[in-house]
Amino acid sequence: MDVIAKENLTGVLLALVSSGFIGASFIIKKKGLKKAAATSGVRAGYSWVKFDNLRVFDCGLLDPVIVGEVANFVAYAFAPAVLVTPLGALSIIVSAILAHFLLNEKLHAQGVVGCVMCIAGSVVVVIHAPEEHPINSVLQLWNMATQPGFLFYVASVIVLVFILVFLYAPQYGNSNVLVFTGICSLMGSLSVMSVKALGTALKLTFEGKNQLLYSETWFFTFVVAICVITQMNYLNKALDTFNTAIVSPIYYVMFTSLTILASVIMFKDWADQNAGNVISEICGFIVVLSGTILLHTTKDFERSSSFKGSHIVL
Amino acid sequence: MDVIAKENLTGVLLALVSSGFIGASFIIKKKGLKKAAATSGVRAGYSWVKFDNLRVFDCGLLDPVIVGEVANFVAYAFAPAVLVTPLGALSIIVSAILAHFLLNEKLHAQGVVGCVMCIAGSVVVVIHAPEEHPINSVLQLWNMATQPGFLFYVASVIVLVFILVFLYAPQYGNSNVLVFTGICSLMGSLSVMSVKALGTALKLTFEGKNQLLYSETWFFTFVVAICVITQMNYLNKALDTFNTAIVSPIYYVMFTSLTILASVIMFKDWADQNAGNVISEICGFIVVLSGTILLHTTKDFERSSSFKGSHIVL
Repeated sequence: MDVIAKENLTGVLLALVSSGFIGASFIIKKKGLKKAAATSGVRAGYSWVKFDNLRVFDCGLLDPVIVGEVANFVAYAFAPAVLVTPLGALSIIVSAILAHFLLNEKLHAQGVVGCVMCIAGSVVVVIHAPEEHPINSVLQLWNMATQPGFLFYVASVIVLVFILVFLYAPQYGNSNVLVFTGICSLMGSLSVMSVKALGTALKLTFEGKNQLLYSETWFFTFVVAICVITQMNYLNKALDTFNTAIVSPIYYVMFTSLTILASVIMFKDWADQNAGNVISEICGFIVVLSGTILLHTTKDFERSSSFKGSHIVL
Repeated sequence: MDVIAKENLTGVLLALVSSGFIGASFIIKKKGLKKAAATSGVRAGYSWVKFDNLRVFDCGLLDPVIVGEVANFVAYAFAPAVLVTPLGALSIIVSAILAHFLLNEKLHAQGVVGCVMCIAGSVVVVIHAPEEHPINSVLQLWNMATQPGFLFYVASVIVLVFILVFLYAPQYGNSNVLVFTGICSLMGSLSVMSVKALGTALKLTFEGKNQLLYSETWFFTFVVAICVITQMNYLNKALDTFNTAIVSPIYYVMFTSLTILASVIMFKDWADQNAGNVISEICGFIVVLSGTILLHTTKDFERSSSFKGSHIVL
């Protein structure tokens, strides 16, 4: 309990469960696709395919992607975003390791280095993460979201997204990978902040403090819907236009960095931490990013766009 | 001053200076060799070659390797070995970056990731390193070196070295890279401990507390000589028998791990640290190791054995 702040423990466990499910879902899906291709003789499309050995997952509600995303959503209600977001990288490790054993996709030496790196970086991030501040009402979150610094961040994001969508996307969208991924990452940072607000409001409601009476809760719900729809729309455009192996690491780096920036501004995560903790956390984050890039460049992740989309929205 | 313990600051700076000189020496030497090969028409051997542009270094005492090794030696007198040893990896970054700009050896994307990793890992190691304990006499070091735990470590090392030298080296020395590198690494961990004792004794002597009167100081000097000679002898055998690109990362990992183990036993570095600090430091160390492996496997370091020998002895 000394190493991980007690307040963050639930969030860390949920984030790990989430990565486990999302990582495993990729393998299950791919095994199903392979089997379908083998039996039908043609390559199956990117639809969900029944897979006998794991029939327990094979109904809508137990789809591991959905379980993983729900766990991830709940994790944001229990721990700071600067902690939950980088841990998303662990799903890549889970899928790389499972692919090695179940799909016979050999993990190369550099892939192993990438895995070790993601784990070591995540441990550093977890140890030095700030403690989750106790929140008693959605109005507290509303105050945080309407402070001048965060409003400035939101305004900048909206202006940049408009510029990218209306000026750059028509001309450079199909030639420069940064246009679509930039839109997703900018919107993604707002998605996570509003998901965290909504998740916390629901958590409080389940604890008996009904937050659904406040219009602020419904506003956050509206923002979640807008942001997630925009983000998934442009993520699918990016994945339709460019190779997943190029899109994924660029998107992961931009999305995670912007989310941490947004969280630091909105929740003042680093305000009561000493310099050593903040620097260690940034270094841990850089290590996780580097490990992710390494895994993506050494391993050919043939991910379906639908999987990808759901995986990295949060 | 908050981030780095004040007691360690001198040691950290010396270790950085050391890595800078040792990393640069490789480039200077290689440029000299290239030039000599260009003018004489034949490839120059692995001897030190005059290099006009950097004539300032071109006399025995200012040889950058020697400056670097002296700085490294002194660093051990000012900071814990668990801090100084991992920072040695930064010399690889210096030479990789200088080679990129001065020798036009393109640093690949994965090489850049390796560099970033070594830096991030080193920062984590430096922030969480234990403080150097104040030592007033070589007799204190003698007591540390003769405590049962450390004597057991020394005895184990000697037994293993004897087994490797007399049983394994004749039969498997030329076929298994772990035999020669194992001998070097085991002896290397004792080299560093005795170098640290000798350096501290000399530091105290310069401060006016003459330690040369104690036979213990001379005993440590004797141990330094024995260990360094054995280590260099088997390191050269390893480099003569196997490719540098294979020997270097294996040797770096084993040598650094054993040195940290020896230091933790002898100096009880981790005794007054909390679990978070110890785990962070181990993670930082793993990240530096991974970065080093990555740099070595992606970049072909054509190092001369004489350079290599002097570089990684400490």
